[in-house]
Amino acid sequence: MSDPILDTDFIKEMARQMRALDTYGTYSGWTVEKILDPFVLTKERKANIPLIGDPDEETLARVKAFYNAIAVLIEKECRLLAVPLVHLTHEGFGRAIITVGKLVAVDKTLRDVHRFGFDSLSKMKTEADKLLSVALERIGSYPAVAGL
Amino acid sequence: MSDPILDTDFIKEMARQMRALDTYGTYSGWTVEKILDPFVLTKERKANIPLIGDPDEETLARVKAFYNAIAVLIEKECRLLAVPLVHLTHEGFGRAIITVGKLVAVDKTLRDVHRFGFDSLSKMKTEADKLLSVALERIGSYPAVAGL
Repeated sequence: MSDPILDTDFIKEMARQMRALDTYGTYSGWTVEKILDPFVLTKERKANIPLIGDPDEETLARVKAFYNAIAVLIEKECRLLAVPLVHLTHEGFGRAIITVGKLVAVDKTLRDVHRFGFDSLSKMKTEADKLLSVALERIGSYPAVAGL
Repeated sequence: MSDPILDTDFIKEMARQMRALDTYGTYSGWTVEKILDPFVLTKERKANIPLIGDPDEETLARVKAFYNAIAVLIEKECRLLAVPLVHLTHEGFGRAIITVGKLVAVDKTLRDVHRFGFDSLSKMKTEADKLLSVALERIGSYPAVAGL
């Protein structure tokens, strides 16, 4: 029996985001778990990544996929355009924001982007749910700004 | 007699922003007009820049200086932290935003960043004044979001 988490909107959207990046069809025939496996950063995997480093293109693509997926879920819930923006400054520091109208619905300081990942897919979903819930609450509190 | 525009807060702040980037003291002894001269894109200068191109580091630094200066002026006026973010996507397209709390006070789509510039310093100040005035009005309308 497959993990029920794989049937959630968020995980489905994450897989969709990753498939959209898969220009050469590498993922064809892959399970969702296999496609999303690079997001899972177990202790062993983490130990193999240097403490300080610049994120590579693939890691950055995963960070963007994560915030894109959250933006899609925000749009689905509130029917307003949600625009993600992942901005790196230096050495893996940066800022991820999602704007809805003139409201910053998600605002997250990024650190150690080259070590971006989660203990498990379940932990990733928990983090996404948190960001989504804060965003929707804020949009609910300030609908005029979100509608600007 | 020098142009009164050089005594405005905006132009002074622009010069300050540019001097902050001047690691090697190249600008020492330069007039403000000379320091800000690369922002002036006369018709002749514009004609010498290809229609499509990637912005170089110096052009990008000028775009950032422009939005940094506006953020500083917003802070001065409303006494809240204003955070600028200039994000390029591809071929000189991008987005410049300034957030104050969870409010997007400035939101500007960037096009042809490699051709960033203004007819004159006066035109640059006019554009900055417009952005500043929209930002301050929006902050005034939604102080709760700006204070988040």
